[in-house]
This record gives sequence, C-alpha cells and structure tokens, in this order.
Amino acid sequence: MTYNTDLAPDFDRNQLIPAVTQDAESLELLMVAYMDREAWETTLRTGFAHYHSRSRNKLWKKGETSGHVQEVTEIRIDCDEDTILLKVRQTGPACHTGNRSCFYRVVSPASASPSNSV
Amino acid sequence: MTYNTDLAPDFDRNQLIPAVTQDAESLELLMVAYMDREAWETTLRTGFAHYHSRSRNKLWKKGETSGHVQEVTEIRIDCDEDTILLKVRQTGPACHTGNRSCFYRVVSPASASPSNSV
Repeated sequence: MTYNTDLAPDFDRNQLIPAVTQDAESLELLMVAYMDREAWETTLRTGFAHYHSRSRNKLWKKGETSGHVQEVTEIRIDCDEDTILLKVRQTGPACHTGNRSCFYRVVSPASASPSNSV
Repeated sequence: MTYNTDLAPDFDRNQLIPAVTQDAESLELLMVAYMDREAWETTLRTGFAHYHSRSRNKLWKKGETSGHVQEVTEIRIDCDEDTILLKVRQTGPACHTGNRSCFYRVVSPASASPSNSV
C-alpha cells in the first residue's frame, strides 16, 4: 500500500519528529519514539512501525529482535506537522520492560508512593 | 494537592520533555507539547496543564487566553523518564484551529486524498 505524501511531517524544519503510538482498539498510549524521513517512508511503505533510534543512530523496526511488532492501522499528523500519531495492532508488550505500555507508572499525590498500575 | 516528586521527568538530561495529552474519558490524543521543570511543577501544583511555549520561550497555561483549559486527572511517566502523559478534562477544543484534537488529519493511501476526519 502506498500513501499520499502531500500531507507529511515537516522534516525540513525538524530532522527528528516525535511519533506517538496508540493501541488501535483501546487507544492506550503505548510509547513515544522519534521518526526521521527514512523511518517515516519505511513505515508508510511496509505498514509496520519504524522509528529512528537516537541511541544507535539508525533505522529501527519496532520488534525487529523481540518480535513485538506494530502493524499500523492509521496515521495522523498534527496541525503544525511536527508530530505523528500512529494507531497500531501491537504484538506482545510495547515496552522493553515487558509492560504493555511504556507509561506504566502513575505520578501520585504526595500522600501516596509512586505506584505501578499494571 | 501536592505530588510525590520521587518519580519525575529527567530535566537534568533534557531541558524540554514532550508531554502527550489525552482526553481522560475517550483517550483521544488531543495534543503534544513540551514541558520544562517550571511547567511540570506548575502543572502538579495547580492541577491544570501548563507547558513551555517554544515560540514564546515562556510558561504557558493551556487556555489562558482562549479559556480552553485542561484539568489534569492523571499523570504518567514513561520507562525512560523522558516523556510525560497527561490525562485531562478538556474545556472546548484543544487545537488552536478549533478542532477538538490537533490530530484531525489522516494520512491516506495514495488512491485517496488527504482527508479531514473531524
């Protein structure tokens, strides 16, 4: 499947653009990573989420080693064209900690301890 | 209400941290903006979403002029402590375009035109 690229993130202004990834069914926020033009184009071409690894400075197919891939069902762009939203079908956990979502920790009022809410 | 700040974004490593804002009920992704330490602490202290405006380089209470404020119901931090999730009760639209969400545009397959899906 190819995509109309008239509507695209502004990689000329920002080399790396945040990509927010939600579970397509539950809308749970799974993770936030970054895309460059290569990651964007590879995601559109393959239908699987690819990001740019800032630590390894290279293209990163989510789940390439773990098998925890993300099949993209919808892509949106924000008003400023500097943030990407992916809705995905997540295989296994999204987080390297083994949690479904990277956002498994709630910041609690001072009367309570920071808690895991998994 | 005060918050336990043992669990906090790592502002020493990153001066500005992306904050992803979801509607507390529908989980719709409303917007993505940035927080510095001042915005983070003001959000915790007041219970209303504050960001750091990169264009104006100052603290920005969401809705301070429009009235479209965000009452925070939950705050989460990701595994790397470099992204914040806010769940909010949004008054009015979140986007300056008047759309409920900044992510009102879907990137479509090439056979279709980019479409608004509001």
